[in-house]
Amino acid sequence: MKDESLKQAFDYIQKNKEPFLRDFRTLLRQPSISAQGKGIADCARIVKKNMDTAGIKTQILPEKNGNPIVYGEVKSKSSSKTLLIYGHYDVQPVEPLEEWDSGPFEAKLQGKKIVSRGAADSKNNVTSCIKATESFLKTTGDVPLNLKFLFEGEEEIGSPHLPGFIDQNKERLKADSVVCYDGDFDETGRPKISLGVKGLLYVELRCKKAREDLHSSYAPLVDNPAWRLVWALNTMKSPEGKILIKGWYDDVEPFTPAQSKLVSKIPFRGENYLKEWGLKKFLNAKTNREALKKYLMEPTCTICGIKTGYTGQGSKTVLPGSAMLKIDFRLVYNQNPKKLLAALKSHLHQHGFDDVQVKALGFLEPSRTKPSAPIAKAADRAAKIAYGRSPVVLPRNPASGPDYLFTKRLGLDSIWTGSGPPSAYSHAHAPNEYTTTDDFIAGIRYIAAIIHQYASIA
Amino acid sequence: MKDESLKQAFDYIQKNKEPFLRDFRTLLRQPSISAQGKGIADCARIVKKNMDTAGIKTQILPEKNGNPIVYGEVKSKSSSKTLLIYGHYDVQPVEPLEEWDSGPFEAKLQGKKIVSRGAADSKNNVTSCIKATESFLKTTGDVPLNLKFLFEGEEEIGSPHLPGFIDQNKERLKADSVVCYDGDFDETGRPKISLGVKGLLYVELRCKKAREDLHSSYAPLVDNPAWRLVWALNTMKSPEGKILIKGWYDDVEPFTPAQSKLVSKIPFRGENYLKEWGLKKFLNAKTNREALKKYLMEPTCTICGIKTGYTGQGSKTVLPGSAMLKIDFRLVYNQNPKKLLAALKSHLHQHGFDDVQVKALGFLEPSRTKPSAPIAKAADRAAKIAYGRSPVVLPRNPASGPDYLFTKRLGLDSIWTGSGPPSAYSHAHAPNEYTTTDDFIAGIRYIAAIIHQYASIA
Repeated sequence: MKDESLKQAFDYIQKNKEPFLRDFRTLLRQPSISAQGKGIADCARIVKKNMDTAGIKTQILPEKNGNPIVYGEVKSKSSSKTLLIYGHYDVQPVEPLEEWDSGPFEAKLQGKKIVSRGAADSKNNVTSCIKATESFLKTTGDVPLNLKFLFEGEEEIGSPHLPGFIDQNKERLKADSVVCYDGDFDETGRPKISLGVKGLLYVELRCKKAREDLHSSYAPLVDNPAWRLVWALNTMKSPEGKILIKGWYDDVEPFTPAQSKLVSKIPFRGENYLKEWGLKKFLNAKTNREALKKYLMEPTCTICGIKTGYTGQGSKTVLPGSAMLKIDFRLVYNQNPKKLLAALKSHLHQHGFDDVQVKALGFLEPSRTKPSAPIAKAADRAAKIAYGRSPVVLPRNPASGPDYLFTKRLGLDSIWTGSGPPSAYSHAHAPNEYTTTDDFIAGIRYIAAIIHQYASIA
Repeated sequence: MKDESLKQAFDYIQKNKEPFLRDFRTLLRQPSISAQGKGIADCARIVKKNMDTAGIKTQILPEKNGNPIVYGEVKSKSSSKTLLIYGHYDVQPVEPLEEWDSGPFEAKLQGKKIVSRGAADSKNNVTSCIKATESFLKTTGDVPLNLKFLFEGEEEIGSPHLPGFIDQNKERLKADSVVCYDGDFDETGRPKISLGVKGLLYVELRCKKAREDLHSSYAPLVDNPAWRLVWALNTMKSPEGKILIKGWYDDVEPFTPAQSKLVSKIPFRGENYLKEWGLKKFLNAKTNREALKKYLMEPTCTICGIKTGYTGQGSKTVLPGSAMLKIDFRLVYNQNPKKLLAALKSHLHQHGFDDVQVKALGFLEPSRTKPSAPIAKAADRAAKIAYGRSPVVLPRNPASGPDYLFTKRLGLDSIWTGSGPPSAYSHAHAPNEYTTTDDFIAGIRYIAAIIHQYASIA
């Protein structure tokens, strides 16, 4: 019966390509920029509407001071197992606007490409989960196991309210495993399954001196907040890439033998990345394999943006009154973002930078799930069924997400996966983000197969 | 006769306050932002029209690849002496626009304040020179000595084409002394005469890595241009304020005894500055007197602006593809900006920053004129006549201008002076720049008195 149900679902998907695409593009056209509070509530309503249509019992759960969570459930008549599916309907900001070839919320079809903020990260995946469920329900009148859906609206700002929600809804969220369907493909074009993600600490540093920008002839008299941030930054990371904040690496755990074995199997075509990025070589790596290991294993400290003074055309001789800097730190297992925020603050104090204010904008702990977990096996099989090829399995995804809430707070196995294209090419977080119609439709089949395979696994 | 002529001119100024103010505000309403190429030609035409009306024989001299120079002459019937008056009709950019209380080119009257970009730097001074000349011509039918006017349109971007113009017009510009009427008042409210200015080297540094901003999870693989600029900057100046570029201080000459004597006479009410700027103390100075000396004597290296990555609201996890930085270096006698640009480039190369591109946007050599120069004496007397008080005489103005072209290329004595208010309060180069109607009118009397006194001095 179950194998038959997947075939029926696949047939339904094949027949409904056009309406599925239409609903996907409607969702894309609705901005939902969490960093700027744009369009969130309207987007949540569209997601709920799609879930209602699919036959998922759905609620919009408001979050005090936060963005609503769209939560849905479907009970299975044939299984007592439960799979919790996580995704997010919010997207990154669209700046710099002038670099987009079409409107960031136009959802323009260019041949097989669908160009839009959120096309690859991650409204494609959210829509796929809904449409896969619909495909089971509309054909068999059942789903292979109990499904719970948690679509949040703050993933792109570090999920600040999700920990509270998880803590307050442990009973509601009871499940056997979790699929975070917010992933992409490996850059070699194979499906990718991540058994854990890096954590994140996102901070804004500000320094303010004179009331406003001054004539720069006053430079001998007045402290320059831009110089202060430069000097503070310089104490934080060496040109060789080492983070210089005391204790930063204390809690880093090396890969287990099982994790290292996975690393050795990962294909990595470095030249594809380099070509896409217009670069000649990777940073501080002699070989592609060394670059891959750094990519998976290194904690990072990235300047995401700096703003100070006059940055228009030509010369303006000003001494800035204030300076602002955004940094993200990617963390590896088992670094703790709150502990490291304290370390950063202490570091600035120790180095004489009490004039630099630190504001934390996001915390995500790193996560990990064992390679032997049943949900990992189910996804491996599903990838072969949906795409006809073996997935690439990463012991750790270099990107971040709130996976730790499922692994650490709920104590569940959790995988991070999703549909193509590879984010190396999809311009996720950048101008001209896109997916393709084929990737979108295949992504529906993939999550349907994961649901189906996990229901039947031993 | 001469004393009588100044009195007649003063009377004329008193009677014509309203039309003078009207013409001044018309000029202010015309944007002339040299850094952005906005409104330059139209502004030059308005200046010429005002000069024509005053009775000055005026031409607009186009500059190949540059902004036109408005040049005028008036022959005296009573003197063979010639005074060359320099000024500029261009202004600084107006950003950040949101900090202006009224439109930057609205020339709004707020009580006695005239708020506008260019109100204090330096359309007030340009207008004053024209109206002072008119006041002599319309009353006595003569001027006390031959006058030559050189109003340029590139002062705010470092006068890039003025050196070529000066070299090609040495005959035309023959004179006995120069007044650069582009100054302001001392912060204690007294007129200020500067016997030289600091020089300037303005550069833009750029670093480009990936083709566009990337998802920051790629940080272990891809060089970050913002970090590169931070590390490069850190090699250039110490947190104690010392410029670390090899040879930077080699050509610095200490003040002569006569210059040092002037320094000792300068009043300096530090608390006025600090209050205006919203600060508690001066940078690295134990006393106000020490701050003043640093202000006059120190070469500076000022970050004027940095732009990279995402600087909007909230968190965006991007790895910037490029970063841009603007720096001005103020230079003291006898540092040479072209020599120091070479030193900067060599420094970056020596420190491994060949990936940082340097573009020079402005060069100005420092200048100096002896305290005993006749034009300095004439201005000293004129200040007493026009304002009823002794001027503050600076051996060196901490701001910059193309004064070296007059002192070094033409070999003339040159002073830098102008009307109030003090730039410490006038918001020159900043939002809400203003002068007052009283300062503007008094500034006409002052330049008239300088012309008159220099004509009669031994």
